[in-house]
Amino acid sequence: MNAHIDIDPVTIERRLLSLAAYGAYEDTGVWRPVYSPAWSAAQGQVAAMFQGAGLKVKRDVVGNLWGQLEGSSGGPSIVSGSHIDSQLPGGRYDGALGIVAALTAIEALKDRYGTPKRTLEAVALCEEEGSRFPAANFWGSRAVIGHIRQDEPHAITGYDGESMSEAMEAVGLDPGRVIEAARTDIGTFLELHIEQGPLLEQANLPAAVVTAITGLRRYVVDVAGRADHAGAVPMDLRRDAMAGAVEIIHGVLDTARAMGRPAVTTVGRIAAYPNYPAIVPERVTFTVDARHPDSRALAQLYERHETLFREVGSARDLAVTWKVPLDQPPVLCDPGLVATLKDAANVVAVPILTLHSGAGHDTQVMATRRRVAMIFVRSQGGRSHTPAELTTAEDAAAGARILAAALYALAY
Amino acid sequence: MNAHIDIDPVTIERRLLSLAAYGAYEDTGVWRPVYSPAWSAAQGQVAAMFQGAGLKVKRDVVGNLWGQLEGSSGGPSIVSGSHIDSQLPGGRYDGALGIVAALTAIEALKDRYGTPKRTLEAVALCEEEGSRFPAANFWGSRAVIGHIRQDEPHAITGYDGESMSEAMEAVGLDPGRVIEAARTDIGTFLELHIEQGPLLEQANLPAAVVTAITGLRRYVVDVAGRADHAGAVPMDLRRDAMAGAVEIIHGVLDTARAMGRPAVTTVGRIAAYPNYPAIVPERVTFTVDARHPDSRALAQLYERHETLFREVGSARDLAVTWKVPLDQPPVLCDPGLVATLKDAANVVAVPILTLHSGAGHDTQVMATRRRVAMIFVRSQGGRSHTPAELTTAEDAAAGARILAAALYALAY
Repeated sequence: MNAHIDIDPVTIERRLLSLAAYGAYEDTGVWRPVYSPAWSAAQGQVAAMFQGAGLKVKRDVVGNLWGQLEGSSGGPSIVSGSHIDSQLPGGRYDGALGIVAALTAIEALKDRYGTPKRTLEAVALCEEEGSRFPAANFWGSRAVIGHIRQDEPHAITGYDGESMSEAMEAVGLDPGRVIEAARTDIGTFLELHIEQGPLLEQANLPAAVVTAITGLRRYVVDVAGRADHAGAVPMDLRRDAMAGAVEIIHGVLDTARAMGRPAVTTVGRIAAYPNYPAIVPERVTFTVDARHPDSRALAQLYERHETLFREVGSARDLAVTWKVPLDQPPVLCDPGLVATLKDAANVVAVPILTLHSGAGHDTQVMATRRRVAMIFVRSQGGRSHTPAELTTAEDAAAGARILAAALYALAY
Repeated sequence: MNAHIDIDPVTIERRLLSLAAYGAYEDTGVWRPVYSPAWSAAQGQVAAMFQGAGLKVKRDVVGNLWGQLEGSSGGPSIVSGSHIDSQLPGGRYDGALGIVAALTAIEALKDRYGTPKRTLEAVALCEEEGSRFPAANFWGSRAVIGHIRQDEPHAITGYDGESMSEAMEAVGLDPGRVIEAARTDIGTFLELHIEQGPLLEQANLPAAVVTAITGLRRYVVDVAGRADHAGAVPMDLRRDAMAGAVEIIHGVLDTARAMGRPAVTTVGRIAAYPNYPAIVPERVTFTVDARHPDSRALAQLYERHETLFREVGSARDLAVTWKVPLDQPPVLCDPGLVATLKDAANVVAVPILTLHSGAGHDTQVMATRRRVAMIFVRSQGGRSHTPAELTTAEDAAAGARILAAALYALAY
């Protein structure tokens, strides 16, 4: 393959902005929940772009949109893409850039090298963020691997009270057919995505090859003590849920910090009850989100956190309990695909880092019985999930060149 | 005065329960915001009880209700009472017991000793808790001392959006006349109140004489950092508002604990933004309520808290700012009145503690140019501001006997 394969930053930028018009939010953001009018219009635009690039367009029963370039020798497809939905509000790049990069890379290969041996497909997955239906995140990729149950569209409710099945019907999809989205003919999945962190910017590099996706566990911790009057009860007689909560929060953040990169722990959500300035809180609940890409280190991180929960409860005579609503093991990218991506970066002369992903991605879902890997491109300021997210057209094109070179190596 | 002055626990209990019927909440609570139908009915019942006891009833322009026993020799009145409004929900005793005790004590003195030299009055103050109109707490006592401005009823808005003036009109009061409630003929104010804390219970004593009311400062602290993705940004690169907030909260609680009784600091209210489990909080705001009855110790407590706010902000590169929406200096009870109450307890053979009040009371407002003091009675479990609050009829009667003996000493 020619090192100078032509991925034009201007094309990437133009396509990205054409998608950003659907659900545009303020100057630079998007608000594009799954199955909304903005979402429908954006998928319509994707279909038009796929068709314009000469790909065969197919919309599946959950609204994933596929653009196929059929290969001459059959076999499982090699697929690249990402999700079309957004955070509320989100930025223009998270998800959408992976669709545009896949389309533009496959188009460039087709224009230059014609029909591949293996079938190539670009995909705009319908939903990843869980921003409208919290229980539905990874909806698009879960449908593809056959991990949606027949009754889920009726069981899942959105933040506004609407059911997933009503939302599907509103855009012309039959919620009774969701299980038909499953595909067994995909062999490889590659996703280009913005980094969402600052490491590429700090290294002054445009792109990275991703070797693993973090494991994570989400705790919801409940600390229960006794409500007391803020003036009438001495400190030494209180069973103050806030005092216990802050000792735990300080401890878990410090544990991750002391363990060092790439261990991370975040307490993003907190509530006190009854939440009055002059009442010692009876209960404080908060989330603890702990992540590490290595399963042994991850187990150690969890164990230290849970030990602290127990110790603080016992030392302060507080009832500390916790639930685990989310528990995802780390996903290793396929070593052979990772090597292919590194070779591809070398071919197209794009300098790269090797990173793990600290965020979840459709790739981790697709990893079930498929070879997967990812490319990250630089996020300015490490920002994501905000209208302020930004990836330059040059960095996006650099990532798309790696993708194109890898798809060439795999499919031609 | 006879040590066996007759304050019958059964009378206290009966009167208290008759008031608790107005705004009854669940089995043992009350829900009686100022100027509500339940409040009107309760003040009607107070008027009936005052009248039944042979007191001259007067309702003032803000709805305070006075029951007067005129003295033979003129001079400023000696007043005792408390507030008729409640927390939402509150208990039966907070406020109401002080009204019943004053009425029952004055009635007992009248029945036994006839007309006093000095005029005695029982009062049911209209509002103290701020539970309907947060900016209106101490409304009743502020009106009496002339600390309500003419425009306040129009300016003050309730939690439900209603103005104070609308609420007054709904119960037949003219909001244009509020300043007419001011009285300059009150020389002494005594308030009996539940302790709201556990110290009498721990000492196994029925009552206490209160020497001071705590000073307190309420801070609203805002810690601002940077929102980051919970997975994609390493711990060492974060400016985590939650990490700064918990360091401050842990520190202020520990400062009060280390300073020892009676220093207290409470963090009762907290909020994180954007409050998502997978986003490092950009901002965390919380209240810090710090109290001490001694003004020098209080200044030291405030200084240590504010120093910590600054230090944590500086050490963690966070913007820590704070406002002080509430700042009350300590109020010393009149030493002569405190001595009178202690003597009275001795006369009626009620063993007492000497305490300060860690809570705010109408007494601290009345302290402006009037002699004030308080009697506390035991709170079971130290509970208050809850339907679970409970003071036994025996403890209530013990406190009322001290009050009666003191009023005798002052007025006869």
